[in-house]
Amino acid sequence: MFIHQTLLRVRYSETDQMGVVYYANYLVWMEVGRVELCQSLGFRYRDMEKDDGVLLAVAEAQCRYLSPARFDDEVIVETSLKNAGARLVRFGYEMSVENGARKIARGETTHLFVGKDMRPVRLPEKYRALFGL
Amino acid sequence: MFIHQTLLRVRYSETDQMGVVYYANYLVWMEVGRVELCQSLGFRYRDMEKDDGVLLAVAEAQCRYLSPARFDDEVIVETSLKNAGARLVRFGYEMSVENGARKIARGETTHLFVGKDMRPVRLPEKYRALFGL
Amino acid sequence: MFIHQTLLRVRYSETDQMGVVYYANYLVWMEVGRVELCQSLGFRYRDMEKDDGVLLAVAEAQCRYLSPARFDDEVIVETSLKNAGARLVRFGYEMSVENGARKIARGETTHLFVGKDMRPVRLPEKYRALFGL
Amino acid sequence: MFIHQTLLRVRYSETDQMGVVYYANYLVWMEVGRVELCQSLGFRYRDMEKDDGVLLAVAEAQCRYLSPARFDDEVIVETSLKNAGARLVRFGYEMSVENGARKIARGETTHLFVGKDMRPVRLPEKYRALFGL
Repeated sequence: MFIHQTLLRVRYSETDQMGVVYYANYLVWMEVGRVELCQSLGFRYRDMEKDDGVLLAVAEAQCRYLSPARFDDEVIVETSLKNAGARLVRFGYEMSVENGARKIARGETTHLFVGKDMRPVRLPEKYRALFGL
Repeated sequence: MFIHQTLLRVRYSETDQMGVVYYANYLVWMEVGRVELCQSLGFRYRDMEKDDGVLLAVAEAQCRYLSPARFDDEVIVETSLKNAGARLVRFGYEMSVENGARKIARGETTHLFVGKDMRPVRLPEKYRALFGL
Repeated sequence: MFIHQTLLRVRYSETDQMGVVYYANYLVWMEVGRVELCQSLGFRYRDMEKDDGVLLAVAEAQCRYLSPARFDDEVIVETSLKNAGARLVRFGYEMSVENGARKIARGETTHLFVGKDMRPVRLPEKYRALFGL
Repeated sequence: MFIHQTLLRVRYSETDQMGVVYYANYLVWMEVGRVELCQSLGFRYRDMEKDDGVLLAVAEAQCRYLSPARFDDEVIVETSLKNAGARLVRFGYEMSVENGARKIARGETTHLFVGKDMRPVRLPEKYRALFGL
């Protein structure tokens, strides 16, 4: 299974008055993780949208919060390609701090390939091998 | 089952370059829904945090995206109290546009009652009846 | 001078670990204020973008923070049309809580009318009277 | 004048339906810039808050938008310490893409030193030299 590791530092804007990271921001980190995963697989997500008009519309997202992340923590996001088909792709995420010693969250997102009109399309041939198809 | 209906209008800031609402923002709308649900149940979430030091830490969040929401759409968020105990509570969410005619998302969040130190606590007696316990 | 009043409630997501609203979110509230102002002037900003391909690109934004806003506060945003021309428009904002008794911020934004390619355009004739031109 | 350079990549979440970065997000980047500047000056902003109870409350923020930034662009934020006193500090920001070749924004923020109760305090002695006082 292909795994990509992303490093990011918690921004002040990402915290809330509980003193920890607001829960929706983990989905933003997942996005950062999967954009970098695409680059590791050999293409830029930006180009897939711009040049081929193929977008990854989110069909489902799920996150389990294990331990709080705080401002200025260095977070490791491990993104994996869980499975891919011509019509959809699923990514998994493991997030941790303290050099991986403390797990903070685990999640998954499922995406449909769609065109600019948001209608489902099949993944163009040129991307298939990159996704292991 | 107790259900509360929240109305909100999609902000420009909530869209992304796909021309639709960015997926993490649905979790923000869920938060707005459950804060209003608390008020319907008979207390303000703000007071529970401030006066009693009890916070709702998110343990899990999940969302299925059914149809895109767009800038300036009027969104109905129906929040329900799915089940509650002395240690955790679960909320459900149904989101729609066009006066409820088009479903856009369905989700669920699970929360632990915690103190300001983020450690689990039991829900204080005074809130039990409000949660149907 | 034309003034529109918007009411909004502070979201939990808008706070930060200082326990008050994060400073960038005031610019989001300004956006909500000016979208509603447009509607008061007689058109929907969404339609101007979609039907006429005219966008309001921000050229400058400025905000003075006078007093903190907190979670669940009801905020009044008073948006005014400060001046408008065929090429740009300037809005002013006064924000307060406690029914207007406590001022929290004062700001201003300047916008250029641009096309979908982000190049400056002149405001179409049909909108001129609405902006008082 | 002390200048610190921060690199960041535009996130998908930071774009809006105009296809460019939403204007409030530049203030988030300024925050990332000044947190890193503090570290360059010799202390972590997190520790100043936690250990000394001194916070930087924003009194004013201003940004001029020169050219749009887009998803996946690599942004350089140059943060400078414009002037500092025992009661307030002012930072300047220059943002660019394409290795500095295209300026995208220029801004400034002014901050008051405050305690956890949000009341003004004087900068503790131990930080004075770091701010050049």
